[in-house]
Amino acid sequence: MRSDEKDTAAPKGEGTATAHRLAAKQQEISVTEFFEKNKQILGFDSRSKSLLMGVKEAVDNSLDACEESGFLPDVIVRIDRLAEEDYKVYIEDNGPGIVHKMMPNVFGRLLYGSRFHALRQSRGQQGIGISATVMYGNITTGKPAHIRSRIEGEDEVAWQMDIVIDTKINRPVVTNDKAFTWDGKEHGTSVEYVTKGRYITGRQSIYEYLRNTAIVNPHARIEFRDPEGKVTVFERATEQMPPKSKEIKPHPEGMEIGDLLKYAHNTAQKTMKAFLKSDFSRITDRIATEILELSGVSPDAKPSGLDRDQSVRIIEAIAKVKIMAPPTDCLSPIGDTLIKKGLMHVLEGMRPEYYATPVTRPPKSVNGNPFTVEAGIVYGGEIPSEGQVTILRFANRVPLLYQQGACAVTKSIMEIDWRRYGLEQRGGKGIPFGPAIILVHVASTKVPFTSEGKEAVASYPELQAEISQALKLCARSLKSHLNKMERKQKTHAKFEIVQEILPDLAKKSAEMLGRPVPDLSRTITKIMNVVWIEPSSKRVDKRRREVSYEIYNYTAQERTLRLHMRLPRECVTLAMFKNPRFLDMNDEGKANWEVCGLAPSTSARVSFELEGELADTFDIDDVYVSGINPVHVMGAEALPGDWGIKGLEITETDESDLAEEEEEAAEAEDLGDE
Amino acid sequence: MRSDEKDTAAPKGEGTATAHRLAAKQQEISVTEFFEKNKQILGFDSRSKSLLMGVKEAVDNSLDACEESGFLPDVIVRIDRLAEEDYKVYIEDNGPGIVHKMMPNVFGRLLYGSRFHALRQSRGQQGIGISATVMYGNITTGKPAHIRSRIEGEDEVAWQMDIVIDTKINRPVVTNDKAFTWDGKEHGTSVEYVTKGRYITGRQSIYEYLRNTAIVNPHARIEFRDPEGKVTVFERATEQMPPKSKEIKPHPEGMEIGDLLKYAHNTAQKTMKAFLKSDFSRITDRIATEILELSGVSPDAKPSGLDRDQSVRIIEAIAKVKIMAPPTDCLSPIGDTLIKKGLMHVLEGMRPEYYATPVTRPPKSVNGNPFTVEAGIVYGGEIPSEGQVTILRFANRVPLLYQQGACAVTKSIMEIDWRRYGLEQRGGKGIPFGPAIILVHVASTKVPFTSEGKEAVASYPELQAEISQALKLCARSLKSHLNKMERKQKTHAKFEIVQEILPDLAKKSAEMLGRPVPDLSRTITKIMNVVWIEPSSKRVDKRRREVSYEIYNYTAQERTLRLHMRLPRECVTLAMFKNPRFLDMNDEGKANWEVCGLAPSTSARVSFELEGELADTFDIDDVYVSGINPVHVMGAEALPGDWGIKGLEITETDESDLAEEEEEAAEAEDLGDE
Repeated sequence: MRSDEKDTAAPKGEGTATAHRLAAKQQEISVTEFFEKNKQILGFDSRSKSLLMGVKEAVDNSLDACEESGFLPDVIVRIDRLAEEDYKVYIEDNGPGIVHKMMPNVFGRLLYGSRFHALRQSRGQQGIGISATVMYGNITTGKPAHIRSRIEGEDEVAWQMDIVIDTKINRPVVTNDKAFTWDGKEHGTSVEYVTKGRYITGRQSIYEYLRNTAIVNPHARIEFRDPEGKVTVFERATEQMPPKSKEIKPHPEGMEIGDLLKYAHNTAQKTMKAFLKSDFSRITDRIATEILELSGVSPDAKPSGLDRDQSVRIIEAIAKVKIMAPPTDCLSPIGDTLIKKGLMHVLEGMRPEYYATPVTRPPKSVNGNPFTVEAGIVYGGEIPSEGQVTILRFANRVPLLYQQGACAVTKSIMEIDWRRYGLEQRGGKGIPFGPAIILVHVASTKVPFTSEGKEAVASYPELQAEISQALKLCARSLKSHLNKMERKQKTHAKFEIVQEILPDLAKKSAEMLGRPVPDLSRTITKIMNVVWIEPSSKRVDKRRREVSYEIYNYTAQERTLRLHMRLPRECVTLAMFKNPRFLDMNDEGKANWEVCGLAPSTSARVSFELEGELADTFDIDDVYVSGINPVHVMGAEALPGDWGIKGLEITETDESDLAEEEEEAAEAEDLGDE
Repeated sequence: MRSDEKDTAAPKGEGTATAHRLAAKQQEISVTEFFEKNKQILGFDSRSKSLLMGVKEAVDNSLDACEESGFLPDVIVRIDRLAEEDYKVYIEDNGPGIVHKMMPNVFGRLLYGSRFHALRQSRGQQGIGISATVMYGNITTGKPAHIRSRIEGEDEVAWQMDIVIDTKINRPVVTNDKAFTWDGKEHGTSVEYVTKGRYITGRQSIYEYLRNTAIVNPHARIEFRDPEGKVTVFERATEQMPPKSKEIKPHPEGMEIGDLLKYAHNTAQKTMKAFLKSDFSRITDRIATEILELSGVSPDAKPSGLDRDQSVRIIEAIAKVKIMAPPTDCLSPIGDTLIKKGLMHVLEGMRPEYYATPVTRPPKSVNGNPFTVEAGIVYGGEIPSEGQVTILRFANRVPLLYQQGACAVTKSIMEIDWRRYGLEQRGGKGIPFGPAIILVHVASTKVPFTSEGKEAVASYPELQAEISQALKLCARSLKSHLNKMERKQKTHAKFEIVQEILPDLAKKSAEMLGRPVPDLSRTITKIMNVVWIEPSSKRVDKRRREVSYEIYNYTAQERTLRLHMRLPRECVTLAMFKNPRFLDMNDEGKANWEVCGLAPSTSARVSFELEGELADTFDIDDVYVSGINPVHVMGAEALPGDWGIKGLEITETDESDLAEEEEEAAEAEDLGDE
């Protein structure tokens, strides 16, 4: 980076010679030229990836536009193979459309956009994606992109044009610009371009991207026609738009001096105090005064006159003053259910053993940009256990399919000691092994991607810390499940031994003495002295799952008790309510059942069907009892006080038992140890 | 990315409203604003990393400039801590200097440089690095960067100035621009800036970066003063500049249509044929004619008139015509010795067991940019064996310390099944475990970095394939070493048994019969019937290592033989030549030794000292024999025919032995199997 003008003095020594030689070469690089020569930075580094990038940019924009205008997104994606590596890509949406005059810049100019300066969660933020796609098409095939758009209103016409980017000056070159009638199209935009590419299937395919997108954007309908002509429709799962993310003002926290100066010099406000109060979020009159006093800047000073020293002092003051965290309605997390559905879909029918409770972290902010992290884990069952765990990454509801290794999500996962949470991991570092799938979603007003290709999230310490937090919380719920399973197995084993060994002993001794074999059921009951709850589950068909609890009364007295569990509400079938043992269920799906007067050495059964996608997410071991002294129960925990619904009072007085119970438990122990 | 002008018709429906609302927000984004808001893309995502990035950019530029002007680089790096997170960074070089007028643009304007369009290997290529560093300093501390520069020549004065970047328009703002006398400085440039940062030590520290840089740039002297004031000097290891990489013309291979069009419209040539011949490398008159015929474009057509269809046809034609691979003098690989030294340095004194022969691949080209890949592996000894292997990455002689997971190098390593090559690796995928360090260097006229931060190389399929090739070749040499060791151990074990068991038997039977114990040495010799060569090595002091070969003649006849090995030439000490058994050594360090008339049941010794850094890289098991029937030798292989130097003819006629030999070997087997 050494330089000079062409007309400088003639070279002298070697060094001078070089200084001038280099100078002659020195020149400005247009941003388009830069990216043209560094396509990989935009994600265009292999033909297969390039094809995906284009679709991704277009679809992301379509979803953004629809959400901003309140239209439920209807997106159409079509890919036609023209030759070995030539494809025609067509994406159409029902968004608000683009007013004619600006169509060229939107598609034909890099670093041009409407969301760059906006502080709200959106998919496109850089003003690069779609024009880069158009450019890549131009460069690789020499063909222009064909754009059509219509904005709402009877008297509006649709416009279409061909666009090529002049990379030398980063400006659109438009041809065939004309109005037309877009039959049956009230409003929306379509882009069609020809590009070099390679269509692939599998983990990093366009199909996979669209499917993942549909999952975390259930309000969108996406129709996809692949090069073979096969059409897949990802139907709208809900008519309800996600809560619209609000635009906020910059939050002073973590702002750099340069930012402050820029804001100050561009503000419409006349005084520093007014500027601080009106141009930032969470700065009240009191706080503004406090900041200005601390920094020794006059409240009436002109913001335009703010100099670097003053702004340094203000930044320092901001760090000292306690300011409320940024508002969070600028974010729209995907939430519990969608996280579970996301995980479920990758399972493709495999039955897992356990869904850890998904976590959504309270928002924090980095460089004044609010962000929140969500995580979910699914474990065991039919998930293959040899390989590394599968990682699903999302940013602002966009699935990230490439650069896993570069992502803060992956790094956080690699730094957690998963052995503590029941997963295999050599040396407590690196991606863990085992039957698990981990999902993480980062939502922010500005996701810090590692490159313009938007494939991985950069490892800002603050961000990575939050991801780790979310993951650990999730992992804890997994761990406690695994512990519970382990405890259960142990006691199980012990009691089974009692049930097997005693009759054996009796039989043998009876034979030796030539006596009839005595009936031991009551003795066994006496020794066991528990109410045994045995959950089981089986699939009825693809959508239906039967769950049942067998309750054995291995105690000497009659028992009455209640069962409590939290069911995925949308999966509960009407039949359940008719079940005589069913009592009631609240909005959270917390259901109560009652078993009355269960005689010693007899058993009862509580069973019901769950129907629909989420049926599998219910953990049958997550069952609680009330109305009985928990020490007499095996296979269910005591109903926690904070469970929110009323259990059954313990009526029976168990003193006698309690005394007995201990020694007998001990007895059982001994037997168990054989 | 939807937009319009401010003055468009009033909103109608929701959609229109949005179209217009968005339109109002639509605007151009200055490249500086973009990077200001996306610092992480430039590598400025954590304070510690940011501090490193700045130093890296400045030092890379200094080395580039010095090499271009033929000055042996003298670089000074000083870091002072001003406050908690405020640092002053100073970098000075003895480069050609920058002519006064252009200093502002070089340091105060992004996307401005001299190497962007040049097709030759250099460190800086984007025209972003150093100005981004200046910008980051401005933004985080509000302080300008202070630049000084002087170009060679008595009548030249030095100039200094303060530079701040106006991010709104991406232009430098200069203050305090004045000439001064730079005492004792003939030519060179210094940059000083204040920045937010955090100084760390360890794997990703500035110290580590400078040390690695010094290793692969032995012609540079780097002086470093850390914030504690501790000065480290990485002295010049050679006065010889690396071969200067030549600038080449674009190679037609893999060129995109867009590239061709741009070249055609900018060329000075008047006809298509002249254009193809003069503006590209490897296009001869014949080839130019062939291409134009195939594409049906007239040789006399004006390049300026070339249209897209024609250029599509020309690109297609180029793919069909056989064109010579691009010239490679535009690249400068680091080579065998530096690779070994690079590996050695990370060892920090740990003694490895084996250095695999480094590999330098013949250059290929991607998108018309020539590139070559080098790889080296060091294994075993004191290298810790629990964790994953250590990976060292270099691009154009610059060490890459961040984003390992995003790098094509890492991906290639993860996709190789290292179990085949003797390393541990679960499922044959992922980073292998074991006592090994892997080094990879990618050199290219345009390294495809994944982002402007230049921390990882993008996974172009062509590039990744080459990296895998280099690694596999290297791994093979490792594997064959491991095999050799295994074979050796086995036979070793067997023969040791012979030597232990026989005397035992003899002793016992003698005792039982109350007879004196017979001397079995001749019997053992008869059974062994081998010349046993036992290499050993021990450290004399930090720089010296003693290597010796004990030669036992366990055969019935007198033996004369030669030993051959390839020594690291620079480590050979004069003493060696005086050794009576030493014959001669050639330029490659291939040395010959002779042992004459070694009587049965006696032994001789060949030993010498190696001195200096590379002493450890010599593999003592890499020894060959001649002048004797190899079936009678244990511990050395027969001298290969292509070894290049003459061995000793086999004189003795071994027929008798050969017959004997077999049954006795069999005998030995039996004993061995007990």
